Amino acid sequence: MADAKPLAVVLASGGVDSCVATAWARQRYRLAMLHVNYGQRTEAKELECFNRLVAHFADDESLIVDASYLGRIGGSSLTDPALVVPEDDVPGSIPSTYVPFRNANLLAIAAAWAETIGAQAVVVGAVEQDAPGYPDCRPSFYEAANRLIDLGTRPDTHITLETPLIRMTKAEVVRLGAELGAPFALTWSCYRSEAAPCRHCASCRRREEAFREAGLTDPLVENP
Amino acid sequence: MADAKPLAVVLASGGVDSCVATAWARQRYRLAMLHVNYGQRTEAKELECFNRLVAHFADDESLIVDASYLGRIGGSSLTDPALVVPEDDVPGSIPSTYVPFRNANLLAIAAAWAETIGAQAVVVGAVEQDAPGYPDCRPSFYEAANRLIDLGTRPDTHITLETPLIRMTKAEVVRLGAELGAPFALTWSCYRSEAAPCRHCASCRRREEAFREAGLTDPLVENP
Repeated sequence: MADAKPLAVVLASGGVDSCVATAWARQRYRLAMLHVNYGQRTEAKELECFNRLVAHFADDESLIVDASYLGRIGGSSLTDPALVVPEDDVPGSIPSTYVPFRNANLLAIAAAWAETIGAQAVVVGAVEQDAPGYPDCRPSFYEAANRLIDLGTRPDTHITLETPLIRMTKAEVVRLGAELGAPFALTWSCYRSEAAPCRHCASCRRREEAFREAGLTDPLVENP
Repeated sequence: MADAKPLAVVLASGGVDSCVATAWARQRYRLAMLHVNYGQRTEAKELECFNRLVAHFADDESLIVDASYLGRIGGSSLTDPALVVPEDDVPGSIPSTYVPFRNANLLAIAAAWAETIGAQAVVVGAVEQDAPGYPDCRPSFYEAANRLIDLGTRPDTHITLETPLIRMTKAEVVRLGAELGAPFALTWSCYRSEAAPCRHCASCRRREEAFREAGLTDPLVENP
C-alpha cells in the first residue's frame, strides 16, 4: 500500500537544524528533499551531508538547485573568500555571514518546486536564536513568506510553510533531534573547514554549546 | 557632478511592460538593470532585447542571473518544450504559461541584489490585466512581497517595491511608454518565435490589441 502521508518539500543544508527538521517532517510527510547551492564556502561538504541525509531519510524525490548567483551578488563572508568569517557574534549587530535576502531566495525556490510537484508543505529548520540578528530568521519573516506563498500560487495550491524549530533554543533542537533519532553524525556546521570542525567559528561554538547544554555528546567531536 | 538620484534595481525581460517600467524608473532613479534567465523558451531573444535596453537606458550596472532551475523544475509551457503554448486565454483559468511562483523568485533575486548594492527600490513592470489569472501578478501579491522584503533585509536597508503599471490596461502602458519615449522597437513579446512575432500566441495578441487600442503603431509589426 502506498504511503498515505502528504508530500512536503524540506530545505536541507546538511546542518544540525535542517537534520532535525527533516526528522520532524519525516513523521508527518513523505519527503521531497531540496538542497540549494548558493555559492557558500563549504558547499562541497554541505552537499556531501545532504546526500547522506537523503540516503538516510530517503523516500520521495530530491533536488539540488544551483543558485550560485547569490554568491556572485556577494555581500557576505559566507560566500566571499575575501571576507573573514568572524569568531564571535557581536550582540545587536548582523554578522558578516548574513547573505542578503538568502532565505527568501531559498523559500521561493522551495515553493516553486512544492507547487509543481503538489507538495502541501515547505519545511524549514530555521532557528531564530541560532542566527542572532539575521533579519530573515525571525518568525515574522516566515509569517510574511507564508502569506506570499499563499497569494503567489494557484488558488487550488495550498502550501503551508512550517518552521517547527523557529522558537527553540539550539539545545532544545539538539534534544528534539536526539529523541527523533536524527543522525547528527551525518551533519556539518563549521563555516570554515570541510575536514574537521574548526571549533572556533561562531557556528562551531553554537553547536558545541548546544550539545553541552543538552547534556549530549556531539558525534563529530567525539569521533572526528 | 554625480547624478544625485537614488539607485533602483529594475527587472527587465525585454518585453513591452518592462521597457515602459524602465523608462518610468529612469526619470526617478539611477538604474541597475537585472535580467533573469529562468529557462524560458525565448531566452535568447529576451537577452538580446535586454542588452539593447541596457545600451539604451545605460547608466549604472547591469546583471544577468541564471535561475534556470525554474525551467528544470518545470510545470509550465513557457519553459517546457513538450507543452503547447496556447493561442487564447481561457477566462477564469490559469494559462499553461504560468511558471509556478516565478515572480517571487525574480523578486527575491532582485531584492538580494538591491540590498547588496544599496538600491532603494526594486521596480517591476507587472501588469495585472496583462497576465490574466496569474496569481503572482496581483497587487496583493506585490504588497505581500514588499512586506517580506522589509522584514527579510537589514534594519537599515529600505527597499520599496514599485509596480507603476500594475493597475493599468495594456493600452495605457503602451500610451505611457509612447509619452516617455520608450524604445518599443527594442522589445519582444512573442512566446513562440525569435525571428518575427507569430501574431497568434496570447502574448502577441495582447500586444497587438494594446497598440490598436492606444491608437499607435507597433514598430515590430510595421517594420518587422
